Amino acid sequence: MNLKIGIIGVGMIGQDHIRRLTTVLAGASVVAVSDVNGAQAETVAAGIGARCYATGEALIAASEVEAIIVTSWGPTHATYVLAAIAAGKPVFCEKPLAETVEDCEAVLDAEVRHGKRLVQLGFMRRFDSQYRAMKETLRSGIIGAPLIFQSGHRNPSVPGYYTANNALTDTAVHDIDTARFLLDDEPVAISVKSPRKNSRGGALADPLLTLLDMRSGALVTIETSVNIAYAYDIRGEIIGETGVVTLAERNDVVVKANGVFSGRVPADWKERFSTAFDTEFREWIAAARAGGATGPSSWDGYVATAVTTTGVKAIASGAREPIKLRERPALYA
Amino acid sequence: MNLKIGIIGVGMIGQDHIRRLTTVLAGASVVAVSDVNGAQAETVAAGIGARCYATGEALIAASEVEAIIVTSWGPTHATYVLAAIAAGKPVFCEKPLAETVEDCEAVLDAEVRHGKRLVQLGFMRRFDSQYRAMKETLRSGIIGAPLIFQSGHRNPSVPGYYTANNALTDTAVHDIDTARFLLDDEPVAISVKSPRKNSRGGALADPLLTLLDMRSGALVTIETSVNIAYAYDIRGEIIGETGVVTLAERNDVVVKANGVFSGRVPADWKERFSTAFDTEFREWIAAARAGGATGPSSWDGYVATAVTTTGVKAIASGAREPIKLRERPALYA
Amino acid sequence: MNLKIGIIGVGMIGQDHIRRLTTVLAGASVVAVSDVNGAQAETVAAGIGARCYATGEALIAASEVEAIIVTSWGPTHATYVLAAIAAGKPVFCEKPLAETVEDCEAVLDAEVRHGKRLVQLGFMRRFDSQYRAMKETLRSGIIGAPLIFQSGHRNPSVPGYYTANNALTDTAVHDIDTARFLLDDEPVAISVKSPRKNSRGGALADPLLTLLDMRSGALVTIETSVNIAYAYDIRGEIIGETGVVTLAERNDVVVKANGVFSGRVPADWKERFSTAFDTEFREWIAAARAGGATGPSSWDGYVATAVTTTGVKAIASGAREPIKLRERPALYA
Amino acid sequence: MNLKIGIIGVGMIGQDHIRRLTTVLAGASVVAVSDVNGAQAETVAAGIGARCYATGEALIAASEVEAIIVTSWGPTHATYVLAAIAAGKPVFCEKPLAETVEDCEAVLDAEVRHGKRLVQLGFMRRFDSQYRAMKETLRSGIIGAPLIFQSGHRNPSVPGYYTANNALTDTAVHDIDTARFLLDDEPVAISVKSPRKNSRGGALADPLLTLLDMRSGALVTIETSVNIAYAYDIRGEIIGETGVVTLAERNDVVVKANGVFSGRVPADWKERFSTAFDTEFREWIAAARAGGATGPSSWDGYVATAVTTTGVKAIASGAREPIKLRERPALYA
Repeated sequence: MNLKIGIIGVGMIGQDHIRRLTTVLAGASVVAVSDVNGAQAETVAAGIGARCYATGEALIAASEVEAIIVTSWGPTHATYVLAAIAAGKPVFCEKPLAETVEDCEAVLDAEVRHGKRLVQLGFMRRFDSQYRAMKETLRSGIIGAPLIFQSGHRNPSVPGYYTANNALTDTAVHDIDTARFLLDDEPVAISVKSPRKNSRGGALADPLLTLLDMRSGALVTIETSVNIAYAYDIRGEIIGETGVVTLAERNDVVVKANGVFSGRVPADWKERFSTAFDTEFREWIAAARAGGATGPSSWDGYVATAVTTTGVKAIASGAREPIKLRERPALYA
Repeated sequence: MNLKIGIIGVGMIGQDHIRRLTTVLAGASVVAVSDVNGAQAETVAAGIGARCYATGEALIAASEVEAIIVTSWGPTHATYVLAAIAAGKPVFCEKPLAETVEDCEAVLDAEVRHGKRLVQLGFMRRFDSQYRAMKETLRSGIIGAPLIFQSGHRNPSVPGYYTANNALTDTAVHDIDTARFLLDDEPVAISVKSPRKNSRGGALADPLLTLLDMRSGALVTIETSVNIAYAYDIRGEIIGETGVVTLAERNDVVVKANGVFSGRVPADWKERFSTAFDTEFREWIAAARAGGATGPSSWDGYVATAVTTTGVKAIASGAREPIKLRERPALYA
Repeated sequence: MNLKIGIIGVGMIGQDHIRRLTTVLAGASVVAVSDVNGAQAETVAAGIGARCYATGEALIAASEVEAIIVTSWGPTHATYVLAAIAAGKPVFCEKPLAETVEDCEAVLDAEVRHGKRLVQLGFMRRFDSQYRAMKETLRSGIIGAPLIFQSGHRNPSVPGYYTANNALTDTAVHDIDTARFLLDDEPVAISVKSPRKNSRGGALADPLLTLLDMRSGALVTIETSVNIAYAYDIRGEIIGETGVVTLAERNDVVVKANGVFSGRVPADWKERFSTAFDTEFREWIAAARAGGATGPSSWDGYVATAVTTTGVKAIASGAREPIKLRERPALYA
Repeated sequence: MNLKIGIIGVGMIGQDHIRRLTTVLAGASVVAVSDVNGAQAETVAAGIGARCYATGEALIAASEVEAIIVTSWGPTHATYVLAAIAAGKPVFCEKPLAETVEDCEAVLDAEVRHGKRLVQLGFMRRFDSQYRAMKETLRSGIIGAPLIFQSGHRNPSVPGYYTANNALTDTAVHDIDTARFLLDDEPVAISVKSPRKNSRGGALADPLLTLLDMRSGALVTIETSVNIAYAYDIRGEIIGETGVVTLAERNDVVVKANGVFSGRVPADWKERFSTAFDTEFREWIAAARAGGATGPSSWDGYVATAVTTTGVKAIASGAREPIKLRERPALYA
């Protein structure tokens, strides 16, 4: 009765998903795996009694596979998602949906032709209880219409190959999706400010302050600080007409010692979003068993790529760049 | 490969456990149910495709049942636990282990004779991340040895049949176990203070302040306020030699509106301990699959009953009553 | 136009009062000083251009002195207060009013005979904005009637001559007055629990948990921890019928670094109560200029001594000791 | 021995200063007042036994006046400050120093010619314990060099005549000075974003997000929300290389009732900065008695006007406008 899942890409993230699906959550079995590294795929498959497929396409086509998770290398995502849509199977795809707007549009077109949602994007923050409480606060009307959303994304450190563009495509992409989710709004322009550099990152332009103008006029600011050492700290505040709502600290205990009270801040994204990942897959499993998807869609993946690719232009130009979006298909209303 | 579980008692709590085991957590299947209300047992069994047994004993004896959960009426617990031990099957028993010290001792004797732990008690707070962080803080040494533990247990309202004795046997029993868990210590005496009554409870002696003297000399105070209206609020602070550790608030967001900032306090025990229940069963499933148990033991159930029954005497006498405990068997070291 | 003040006792506290009256607050001048240590009195007087008197009695009698502050050695307080009443001059007296109940009663009798309040006791917490906000919360009715008040008084360290009795007469005396102030209630019995000792204090019985039964039935618990190292931390929570009110942390900033967020806790009583002292003297100056007193009265000083002396008996007896209070004169209604 | 002060301008703010100087703080007497409204000046003077002068110039010239406070209408400030400098008397001037950069420069020139500081500007936040703690945290090095400072200035409501320009000249001017104070840095460019308007303010462009580029490269964002209803809320966070420091909430108590915990946010600027005003005048009185000034200087007043007038241009142009500052005279190092 479990949902039979095939996973394409069994690197670190793929393996963590397998762990979650097989040892944490009810309702799913991982029956198939595939990876560009065939040896690793074999090893992982053996460990969980799954079947190993030579290609993602073969895995998608396998009759035993009811739903697919795509956690392979980013540039390959769209191909597998398109194949899953062609096969009429639910597919969970880690970000990005595709690296180019054109490839994202191809997915939109295919899914619209299919006529119902099959694709879910891995924007796990939409399943985080804190962001959901923020959205619920907005819905309640207690703070009025949202005017400004200030998001902060702080990471202890990044590897040497990380560039300012990554700050948009890999890091702020989550804040961009969160802004759209919280505000029920679409961005129309983006600009990126590069202040004094954190000396811990050498020549890396870090932090960045990204500004999004939304269709409603609401303003989004995204601070990305990727070498800030102290913790993995996700901040957010929405300023409304009559009040504000802010992400709370979520430490377990307060310790008083040595002249201060103190509470823990998460060390990394796994600690911070562990429960959100659980909820994300629990809700996806339920939706996929019903043959569909829930939460972030192809449309959300498309907009994310449209915004980040325009943002990369904005970094280069130093100017405010307009974001062009196609009309949203009714499927994603 | 799932652990095949039989559940004795399918009232509200039993059904919630079934929901958790079948739709939330990996690794377990509920294959058998039994209830004193046979019709209800049939209904529940049908809903999940489990087999229905006429008696708890028959369920325990069934070869397909690998592990047992006892959530029946309190006075029946010990009988089923003893039967499970006799059958050599892991058994999870909601509090109390038994309502009398003698019955608890019978379980201890049986399990000691069996030679290894099979029994786990439903003290879910031991699996709560906040209490675990408190214990970790103690272990770290940063606040020195624990001298006083102040526990607060606040409930919005209780039904009319609830008595002051229930405040010990049903409510403070959790704080008593928590104190033993956090302090690694045993109580030697108990007294109960009954202050001014909350007018919301009519003649009910509420709140109560229960004092436990621990073997180390540490003092435990337990405030039970069972009709306090505002929320379900579990408080705790350990005062050490050089610092203190306190349970933090765990609200998702802070809202600023109408002149104040505010954050949510849980509405009921389900909201407060939902994640602890998940962890409790996840760890039990793993332990039961290995043929044993983890966390709170028969010994913890025995001490809880010894303390609460002495506490009931202390309410009646108004005096400090010594708590007599047998020697702890090596099995529970 | 300034109030002309004479100060008896110019030790550390007296000098701090002089500093506050002459360099911080409007409306007062220190025109006279006296001290058992004549040389020190001369030095202090010279520093501020005040006149030095050989005895407290002479200072009180001096026509230029309009109001008196008594900060001399505790056993001398009552004598000076009685002399001030005899002279019809407002007098601010640091705690204790007197060390025996009998001496306190002599002051009550004298002031009642005088027919209006002249005496104000140095219970500065009544002027603290946090305690005032607690009382205001109670008055608002939002938490219903107060049932339990839990007070915590934590001090980094005490000198070697400090005894368990001091924990009542010097330390908990403030919490006792605070309880009476917040609850508008009088204590009827006291008991003192001595848990496991803090090893930092050697043989000192520390911490203590003092329990006060109030006339209304409300229960007060006072934790005194006088060698707790980490800070000077004053805690308080009132548990009502429908809610609770708690003293907040009052740090200026939150710092996030090294994996935690943290905020400062006061280092000592001067830091914690600096603003309360300002308010205390500001309100006293205004009252004394009008020929009277405000806030804590002789009656409050009398009750404090009655409770602490009974508490010292309770430490010795290990029992709950009834507190005998005379009828409260109408003057103190 | 008190500092003899003359006050020019006895409107609401002037009268509040008089109250503070005569009934709250030690060390000062208000001996002279002047106001464009002569009748009001007479009334105020009579109330405190001060002498009334027909013009500010006459007041400044009066031999009894040792120091001057200028709280008259903004456009008149520079004239009075220049007169005070010409008279060699310490002068406290509420913001702005002058409404044009040229007038500010005239003051700089005059004070530099005088050779020592006489002028103090009314930027009271520099005396606020919370901002001082922020600066102290920066100095400690624990968060590394400051990279971004996010300031928030929220006001419940503004009158109908308030314009977007006022949001800079009257409101954000404080955040601008605070940024310079905290970061020890000067702004080089300013831009102003105008997001979706708060419907409570009709056509008013509110909120605004002002961006300042600092000489070091540090970025300052200033959110002004002047009709936000819920409270007067001053926010601030500095993002450094290894940590962040944030203004804490400063509520007195936490109340738990009706499902939430809550704490008060200040209702208005008087509540928020009351203690800062006390400290500001206490330190000014000490400095003025010594013939000088402390804290914010003419230079700070000049830069504030240079930034806000450029900011007004930026509102009109919608562009990033460079801020031109003269070389800072050594007097203000």
